[in-house]
Amino acid sequence: MKCEQIEININSTTRGFHLITDIIQSNIPQMTNYKIGLLNLFLKHTSASLTINENMDPTVRVDLESHFNKLVPENQPYYKHTLEGPDDMPAHIKSSIIGNSLSIPISNGALSLGTWQGIYLCEHRDSKQTRKIIATIFGEG
Amino acid sequence: MKCEQIEININSTTRGFHLITDIIQSNIPQMTNYKIGLLNLFLKHTSASLTINENMDPTVRVDLESHFNKLVPENQPYYKHTLEGPDDMPAHIKSSIIGNSLSIPISNGALSLGTWQGIYLCEHRDSKQTRKIIATIFGEG
Amino acid sequence: MKCEQIEININSTTRGFHLITDIIQSNIPQMTNYKIGLLNLFLKHTSASLTINENMDPTVRVDLESHFNKLVPENQPYYKHTLEGPDDMPAHIKSSIIGNSLSIPISNGALSLGTWQGIYLCEHRDSKQTRKIIATIFGEG
Repeated sequence: MKCEQIEININSTTRGFHLITDIIQSNIPQMTNYKIGLLNLFLKHTSASLTINENMDPTVRVDLESHFNKLVPENQPYYKHTLEGPDDMPAHIKSSIIGNSLSIPISNGALSLGTWQGIYLCEHRDSKQTRKIIATIFGEG
Repeated sequence: MKCEQIEININSTTRGFHLITDIIQSNIPQMTNYKIGLLNLFLKHTSASLTINENMDPTVRVDLESHFNKLVPENQPYYKHTLEGPDDMPAHIKSSIIGNSLSIPISNGALSLGTWQGIYLCEHRDSKQTRKIIATIFGEG
Repeated sequence: MKCEQIEININSTTRGFHLITDIIQSNIPQMTNYKIGLLNLFLKHTSASLTINENMDPTVRVDLESHFNKLVPENQPYYKHTLEGPDDMPAHIKSSIIGNSLSIPISNGALSLGTWQGIYLCEHRDSKQTRKIIATIFGEG
C-alpha cells in the first residue's frame, strides 16, 4: 500500500453549489496508479462545504442553494456571531450540516462514482473565495 | 497493511430508514482478517443516504423519516428540478444533509460500533430501489 | 504504511457544541511519526456528534446550539420515540444531520487543519455524558 497527498486550490468561487469533479480529477493524475483505494478530500474552511450530488441537471444545484437558504436563514434574532456579515453565521451552520470532507473509493485507477454522482464545492459566503482542498490517496498499485 | 474492495447490492428498498448492519457484515466476511483498520461504505446514488443511528427501537427510524420530511418538504414553490416527481428533489437534498458515505473503525476483526449503533440505508424515493454500496477495507492483519 | 488505533474518553460533557482539538491532539502523540496520512475519529454514540467548525469566537458554538434546537425542536407531536425524555429523539436526529465521524489529513506529523478550523464534540443530551471516540491513524512514517 502507498499514500500520497496533493493540495488543490479552487479560485474565485461564487456563492452557490458548484460541480468540481473535473477539477479534482485533473489535479490528481496519479490516481491511475491505484488499482483499489480511497480518496479523501478535506476542505480547509468553515464557511463552505463538500458534498456529492447529481451531476447533470444544473437546477439541482440551484434548488440546493434555495433550500439551504430556507433551512438556515440570515439575520435570525438569536445569532450572536454577526460581526462578519449576515451571510457568515449561516455559512458556518451550513458547513456543519453538509460537512467539509468526502471519502470516495478508487477502482481501477479512477473514482468509483455512480453514473449520476458529481463532487460539489458549496460556497456559502457572498464574496468570491479561494478555497483549499487537501486530497489524500491510499491504496494498492 | 492491505486493502480490499467489495460491491454490495441491496434490493427492493422501500422509502424510509432501514437498519442494514447485518447485510453489511455478512457481505464482508474477510473483516475477520483485520486486527485494526477502517471500513469505508460509499453509496453510489444521489437520492438515498447512509447514516449511523440507534439499532434497537424501530420508532427511531420512523421519527427520522417523519422529521426529514418536515425539514425537506415536497412541492416547494422554488423547486425547479421537478420532472422526476415530487419526491426527487427532496431526496437529493436529504442525501446532501445526511451524506452518502461512512467510515467505521475495525478492531479485532469486527466493526467497532457502539452498543446502540447500527448502519442505516435511508431510501428517499417513493418507488422500490436497488442500491449499490462500495465497501473499501484498509488495515493490518 | 502503518496503522494505529487509540480510544479516547471525554468526560462530563454538557449539552452544547464543544471545542476538543487540544484533547484529541494530546491523546495522539504518535501523530508526529506520520509524514503524511489520515486520522479518522469515530464517536461511538447516537445522541452526540462530531464536526469541524470555527475555533476562535465562542459565539459560533452558541449559535450552532441555538439553530440546531430550532431545526430539530423537542416535543414534536409526531415523535414516537419519547420514553427517554424530550431531548432524546432530537439528539438522534441531530446526530444523523451532523454525523458521528471525521476524517482529517495529517501532514508533517500534525493535523492539516485550516487556520480557523477546530474539532467539535456536539453533545445533544441534557445530562452530562462520557463519550468514547475511536481514533484510527493511517499513513507513511
